[in-house]
Amino acid sequence: MIYDAIIVGLGPAGITNAIYLHRFGFKVLLIGTNDSNLLLAKDIENYYGFDSISGVELFERGIDQAKRLGIEVIKKSVLSIEKYSNFMVTTKDNVYEANKVILATGKMRNKLTGINYQKYEGNGLSYCATCDAFFYRKKNIAIIGSKDYMYHELSVLEPLVNSAYIFTNGEALDDSEHTVITSKIKEFYGSDRLEGIITEDGNKYPFDGVFVAIGEGSTFDFVNHLGIATKDGNILVNDYETNCQNLYAIGDAIGGILQITKACNDGVSLAYKLREERKNGNNS
Amino acid sequence: MIYDAIIVGLGPAGITNAIYLHRFGFKVLLIGTNDSNLLLAKDIENYYGFDSISGVELFERGIDQAKRLGIEVIKKSVLSIEKYSNFMVTTKDNVYEANKVILATGKMRNKLTGINYQKYEGNGLSYCATCDAFFYRKKNIAIIGSKDYMYHELSVLEPLVNSAYIFTNGEALDDSEHTVITSKIKEFYGSDRLEGIITEDGNKYPFDGVFVAIGEGSTFDFVNHLGIATKDGNILVNDYETNCQNLYAIGDAIGGILQITKACNDGVSLAYKLREERKNGNNS
Repeated sequence: MIYDAIIVGLGPAGITNAIYLHRFGFKVLLIGTNDSNLLLAKDIENYYGFDSISGVELFERGIDQAKRLGIEVIKKSVLSIEKYSNFMVTTKDNVYEANKVILATGKMRNKLTGINYQKYEGNGLSYCATCDAFFYRKKNIAIIGSKDYMYHELSVLEPLVNSAYIFTNGEALDDSEHTVITSKIKEFYGSDRLEGIITEDGNKYPFDGVFVAIGEGSTFDFVNHLGIATKDGNILVNDYETNCQNLYAIGDAIGGILQITKACNDGVSLAYKLREERKNGNNS
Repeated sequence: MIYDAIIVGLGPAGITNAIYLHRFGFKVLLIGTNDSNLLLAKDIENYYGFDSISGVELFERGIDQAKRLGIEVIKKSVLSIEKYSNFMVTTKDNVYEANKVILATGKMRNKLTGINYQKYEGNGLSYCATCDAFFYRKKNIAIIGSKDYMYHELSVLEPLVNSAYIFTNGEALDDSEHTVITSKIKEFYGSDRLEGIITEDGNKYPFDGVFVAIGEGSTFDFVNHLGIATKDGNILVNDYETNCQNLYAIGDAIGGILQITKACNDGVSLAYKLREERKNGNNS
């Protein structure tokens, strides 16, 4: 089964886009986890139709709405999106194929906030195992993260590297097969190039390189993996299409007004655009 | 009291715009009647957050939402909008003054549908008493309509014309002071210029001119009265502003995708724009 479109993200933009595409006769699949910024909203009063609703309730209502309309929803973290002739979207259990992928994955955030990562980006600090594993053959590396997404990245690195330490940055992790450091990271060190990690408990760990794979796969990670152009922290789009053909982005991920209504409207607008393109036979 | 903005229309675009402007500290007033196209929707399934809701329920929820947030809502027909240094917005009982007016009055419809009006527009057929009364001094005219809006237009005409007949086009009307024809209108007649009305019961009434004031004051009427530029049946806007300064339009009135989400999004976007302009001191 090849989907017409896989929509990544279960927030307002993704759900609305899926509902409209589904209604327009597209075969769609929604994949995502409970990591929408919507969930942080305690009391939403400015979304038309609701006096007051919590972000958690609205998020769940949206998912239920999509399901009842017959849309397939998979509540799983997306571990990778790769582009061949079609897109291959990987979760822990499966690989899904689609002609188009729509990123509705929320505002881009570098999850290393609070750590001095800036000067080491591209100098020993990488956000993409697939892109950079080759440069660390037989080297000693660390990977930061604690979830499926980290293990997915690690699985790309392990066949090549000499050794890999896992840094969970404070998260618990039940893993007896790897060296796991659960202390929080205080800082990276190294003169020009990254040379290692200092933890808050004062330990110093030298590495040739450090890979970042914190939390669930997010806008930030997909941007880095797919080579998507960004500007001022937002995915750069031309009428919702990224610089990668058939890869689209909507909602907070593309910036603008960070409001539910705007995110939904992105979803509606993109669906109309794709319907129009299909009508014109432009389904490349 | 001079409002910062009067929003005309109680559908999704108007309510959302009012909520955001109110939150941004604008003094706003919402005015409108139960004539949203939303009310025709039996079963809405593609608006984010609702499995299924009727247009009637969503419309009422929206009005309640605005009220509970402390926004003044007047459920009255707007009879006229006039521009002096500020805008004067007239209902049956009151005149309200505002720096800006936002038309959220829905899709523009010529209510003469089914009658051969096209060739007589500007040739004896007028949609604006204020604009054209002068040309009918001491003449015999008809006015089509049956509500407050018709009487408002009639009150402009009566001091000038010789006689005025009311055509309700099928509606009942309790009025002993005027000649009232309740038969449905079959057609207008006249070689080049309109010369009169033929009703479905076969009667023929000669007039020098006919004024149209059917139903409630609507997008179509305000467009004609204010000289607003339109294109393909939609109000022409530049970033939501019409060709009349400080007069804005949002929602179905400006065309595009005729969906609740898009209408709401127009309301959000215009509110952000006006907030930005206020910040920059551009409050002309």
